[in-house]
Amino acid sequence: MRGIGMDKILLSHGGGGRKTSELIENVFQTYLNDDILLQMDDSAVLDDIVFTTDTFVVTPLFFPGGDIGRLAIAGTVNDLSVMGAKPLYLSCAFIIEEGFSIETLKKILKSLKESAEECGVRIVTGDTKVVEKGKCDGIFINTSGIGKLNFKNQLSQKKIVPGDRIIINGNLGLHGISVLIARNEFGIDVDIKSDVAPLSPLLQELKDLDIKFMRDPTRGGLAQTLNELVTDKRFGIKINETDLPISPEVEGVCDILGFEAIQIANEGKVIVIASESDAENVLSVMKKHPLGTDSAIIGTVTEENAGFVSLLTGYGTERIVMPPIGELLPRIC
Amino acid sequence: MRGIGMDKILLSHGGGGRKTSELIENVFQTYLNDDILLQMDDSAVLDDIVFTTDTFVVTPLFFPGGDIGRLAIAGTVNDLSVMGAKPLYLSCAFIIEEGFSIETLKKILKSLKESAEECGVRIVTGDTKVVEKGKCDGIFINTSGIGKLNFKNQLSQKKIVPGDRIIINGNLGLHGISVLIARNEFGIDVDIKSDVAPLSPLLQELKDLDIKFMRDPTRGGLAQTLNELVTDKRFGIKINETDLPISPEVEGVCDILGFEAIQIANEGKVIVIASESDAENVLSVMKKHPLGTDSAIIGTVTEENAGFVSLLTGYGTERIVMPPIGELLPRIC
Repeated sequence: MRGIGMDKILLSHGGGGRKTSELIENVFQTYLNDDILLQMDDSAVLDDIVFTTDTFVVTPLFFPGGDIGRLAIAGTVNDLSVMGAKPLYLSCAFIIEEGFSIETLKKILKSLKESAEECGVRIVTGDTKVVEKGKCDGIFINTSGIGKLNFKNQLSQKKIVPGDRIIINGNLGLHGISVLIARNEFGIDVDIKSDVAPLSPLLQELKDLDIKFMRDPTRGGLAQTLNELVTDKRFGIKINETDLPISPEVEGVCDILGFEAIQIANEGKVIVIASESDAENVLSVMKKHPLGTDSAIIGTVTEENAGFVSLLTGYGTERIVMPPIGELLPRIC
Repeated sequence: MRGIGMDKILLSHGGGGRKTSELIENVFQTYLNDDILLQMDDSAVLDDIVFTTDTFVVTPLFFPGGDIGRLAIAGTVNDLSVMGAKPLYLSCAFIIEEGFSIETLKKILKSLKESAEECGVRIVTGDTKVVEKGKCDGIFINTSGIGKLNFKNQLSQKKIVPGDRIIINGNLGLHGISVLIARNEFGIDVDIKSDVAPLSPLLQELKDLDIKFMRDPTRGGLAQTLNELVTDKRFGIKINETDLPISPEVEGVCDILGFEAIQIANEGKVIVIASESDAENVLSVMKKHPLGTDSAIIGTVTEENAGFVSLLTGYGTERIVMPPIGELLPRIC
């Protein structure tokens, strides 16, 4: 590990930011070294099959706009979808704490099933483990998924060049803030619903368009996702603050707590990268879908500031956007 | 749920026995209803692809003969292998408790990687979540896997008929008892090593033979696996006590604690079912492999006692073998 005294797992190792990257690079990749794993995509591409896994430990289990069941479907379906694949089959594995309410379990399963049906994926295999009271926190769910590549273009970071446009399908920061409010830790009472949703119905509409790359900005938010994209690259990304779709409610909560909405997790958002000439067409298709009505072009791939994400503020100044370093909001997914 | 007052998850719901079956049938299958899921195989068969998932919550993390890393590979590889598939790709998802030792994590990852290499599967995608201290028990690992069907025969319970032979690849009860001893709860000090091993190197040797069905007797042991096979069937299974490979050490511990070795979990065992005329050939191939040197024919599919597993004792008496009902040994996998 970089630094001194890094001998224990910290909460920040799970936050999706720089500490997570350090743990993955220095421990997981070193020991589990595999060419496909090292590509560090959200899913592994195996011929025309895409394969991914995600575990959900969100607390609380129910939050405005969703619950751990819907999250477990959306998270994995979205990881498959952004690879340019049609999600087909999911596994569901549960770790349940002794004493957990079977009524609550049924509610979660109902939500899981409905979310799967909403995007046409099938839950085909599963596993259940029960641990003693106090040895887990209610319920943890892992979903793994298989999808089939079906986009006209092979999507790849390597296709990104200066001039390309960054499109997002709607308001930022809704998931992280909705979970935060559900925890009632800050006494803030605002009506903010999580955006948690399986995005395949929207993204499948784009399969015959000229798309270069897609990614879902989850843990660490847009700031993390864009920074991952520019790291060690010969291009930078410039986003325009005035184009970022952020609701006044999320903006307000972020102001109070000193957060930045672009660092907050989303669970129903995708960034789509297309060339300057294709971007408007992609945007118009996205806007026609219920999951993309608030889509917007928020930035451009640039030659200047290679390796960095910069933000053009409403005042005309420019600043560098860093990925979140520590753990802003643990266990939001 | 059957019975009155079944409103909370009990440890026995995770034991692999009758309570687990009740939970799966009455809750999971009802809510996650899918044709493939309802087939209740260890893996889902999707054209020529097999897909499975398993979570590992074993305590302690290290035990004689293995650790949670080796278990996480063997468990999923074996579930794919018994379907008649060559295991190809695994995902690995970790839930880690804040404060967990990174040195211990590295040991687990090393074991995971070595076990994967031992059987030629690739770990191609992963996920890590960190939860606060006290919210999980050290580390939990989920592995999901993809394999490709490559057996000459399609394996199916439907092919089983009276006269068929039941073969096992070696000593029973080693895994469950080794974990039990590692917990030091009973002050028993015997040298019993877990049999945890990925079985694909052995089972791939059988792919061109006339095999009818295979299954790995894990949670609930041989008793559970055989009972699942005869449930609602027009045949029974009779096993011969004197043919069962059980080591004197396992026999001794079982005698002391009032357990039956056939109800104890294995993690490197498989039952193979073949016709009377093919069984000796299958047995001889199995005996030549290091994972099958102690293989034996232990029983026969019978017309009598349809729906039941019976045991012919060393004294010539016969008794019915029931599946374990409650939770003998929680968290052995």
